[in-house]
Amino acid sequence: MKTFNVKAYGTESKDADLKEMQIERREATPKDIEIEILYCGVCHSDLHTARNDWGGTKYPSVPGHEIVGKITKIGEEVTKFKVGDLAGVGCMVDSCKECESCAQDLEQYCMNGSTGTYNGIDKHLEGHTFGGYSEKVVVNEDFCLKIPENLDLQAVAPLLCAGITTWSPLKHWNVKEGSKVAVVGLGGLGHMAIKLAKGLGAEVTLFSRSPDKIQDALDLGADAVVISNYENEMEAVHGRFDLIIDTVPYDHDLNPYMSTLNINGTLVLVGFIGKMDEGLFTPPMILGRRSVAGSVIGGIKETQEMLDFCGEHNIVSEIEMIKMQDINAAYERMLKSDVRYRFVIDMQSLKN
Amino acid sequence: MKTFNVKAYGTESKDADLKEMQIERREATPKDIEIEILYCGVCHSDLHTARNDWGGTKYPSVPGHEIVGKITKIGEEVTKFKVGDLAGVGCMVDSCKECESCAQDLEQYCMNGSTGTYNGIDKHLEGHTFGGYSEKVVVNEDFCLKIPENLDLQAVAPLLCAGITTWSPLKHWNVKEGSKVAVVGLGGLGHMAIKLAKGLGAEVTLFSRSPDKIQDALDLGADAVVISNYENEMEAVHGRFDLIIDTVPYDHDLNPYMSTLNINGTLVLVGFIGKMDEGLFTPPMILGRRSVAGSVIGGIKETQEMLDFCGEHNIVSEIEMIKMQDINAAYERMLKSDVRYRFVIDMQSLKN
Repeated sequence: MKTFNVKAYGTESKDADLKEMQIERREATPKDIEIEILYCGVCHSDLHTARNDWGGTKYPSVPGHEIVGKITKIGEEVTKFKVGDLAGVGCMVDSCKECESCAQDLEQYCMNGSTGTYNGIDKHLEGHTFGGYSEKVVVNEDFCLKIPENLDLQAVAPLLCAGITTWSPLKHWNVKEGSKVAVVGLGGLGHMAIKLAKGLGAEVTLFSRSPDKIQDALDLGADAVVISNYENEMEAVHGRFDLIIDTVPYDHDLNPYMSTLNINGTLVLVGFIGKMDEGLFTPPMILGRRSVAGSVIGGIKETQEMLDFCGEHNIVSEIEMIKMQDINAAYERMLKSDVRYRFVIDMQSLKN
Repeated sequence: MKTFNVKAYGTESKDADLKEMQIERREATPKDIEIEILYCGVCHSDLHTARNDWGGTKYPSVPGHEIVGKITKIGEEVTKFKVGDLAGVGCMVDSCKECESCAQDLEQYCMNGSTGTYNGIDKHLEGHTFGGYSEKVVVNEDFCLKIPENLDLQAVAPLLCAGITTWSPLKHWNVKEGSKVAVVGLGGLGHMAIKLAKGLGAEVTLFSRSPDKIQDALDLGADAVVISNYENEMEAVHGRFDLIIDTVPYDHDLNPYMSTLNINGTLVLVGFIGKMDEGLFTPPMILGRRSVAGSVIGGIKETQEMLDFCGEHNIVSEIEMIKMQDINAAYERMLKSDVRYRFVIDMQSLKN
């Protein structure tokens, strides 16, 4: 298979900083599009993968799965895109397309394993996939998204992961005009959850431990903020929410939130991948048919719907632009939650 | 308000055995029916309430909420029943009838609190409600059930709690022909879950720790039994079930079961009311949109549908008949799971 080299930013080991490197991309096959990456969002998963926090990282590791750019080449069988179009790539670049999940446009739950945009098994080249911290990416058109032209392109990038991760549960659990939604945690995911839930017509409350997030949350569109370690505030929202999107990326006790769900309500975990320390207190669940669920990103069809919705409602992420060379410092700031609310890399900086 | 006395069996304190006592019943008001109790099932909740295991027990306590009998009197405005009819009473005898839950026929989740058949606040007499370990009960007809005439009456009694407790989640989570359902634990609830899920056309698997339950489960209609502490058996059902009904009445680790759910699958807790020790391991939930939920009994309309379904499919509980005077020994046997699968009291014995 023909390949070409591109500049990228990645790391050779879990302890090393990210630095410039060369990686191989395949020449576009008939169904592929080649994208010149203009902007790439920085997700917590990038950091966790680079540092092997979840195990299983293959090195060199080139993160990045919030990719937007311009199409520079298309394969001869490509029908959905043309050269010069904007395109986006999220967390997946392939799936089996044959299982029950894929048949339902749920490629994120592909039973044979979808292919991650980075650290996945590359079905075309030997080795593993490389993400969007690079000049170009080559992806089957079925896993590429159309980008609404009216949106600020750099602020669109985080929609490809933070956006769809919160959109998918909002849609799956049927949030609509008048629904009462709460969001736990105000970070990259949380701020998108607020914007998207508001866009869908919900009444939105933020749960936060930090009173200094109140003004920000209201500015983002939240109707209310509940400080989760103030018992009286928690009691005041007892039985209130139809859906809670829990974006907290570390272990925490779910029980205080469960009683704030309405009958039949669901708390959906989208942030913390791991073992929780506190066990569930079952009475609020049993006596109110309340649920705890998990959800990961969303299918390609659903991602396109989310992007189209954002185009119609003029929704983008709140971002702070960085240069590629600033990525290591940005990771350190992310660990301190010192970003409002998503870093996006200006990929032009990689050319310098 | 006019009242009359009936013989009952109850306890004066958490440490005392149950013994014969006199309790008051109201004379039937216009919407009430008076039922001569013929059989009353024995539920774990009876024991927990008598012994104040959950706190809040009011004494004297007369348990019993799996009641079937014959109508001996009706109020002048009763329209659904007539004297001589069979009737059943389950876990509730009233609710607010005005809240969002009641408006959806979900009286079990009444936001103002449904009235328990025992240990509830009696809206007619001072004090608290008394259950079915008694000669007669007087209940508003809206909380009484019609009993299919073709079923063995004594074996119908447990349907009023064990039956509806497992039926409601089967219906709520849309179990139908071809669904793959697992049941954790083979006791009063578990054996009903198997029968009802089979009746609905599901493929049913029992999870049990006891190989000596295998034959029983198959006899009850289960298609398979998985011994839950055999890792290879658990791995063999990875990703298999659409719904798991978890009937285990004590604390246990849910995590081994979560991976046996299919994408979008739900594990529903119906047995254990309390704090779980083990926290959730979130990856199977997040990466497969799997849920843990709770569910309690069912609404009156749904209970009637379940009874009608049982009439059509000839489904009843497996029971062991006891005399009222044997209740204390029966409680001890229940604590050792020494009952296949539900004790039912022949209330004629109370007359002796």
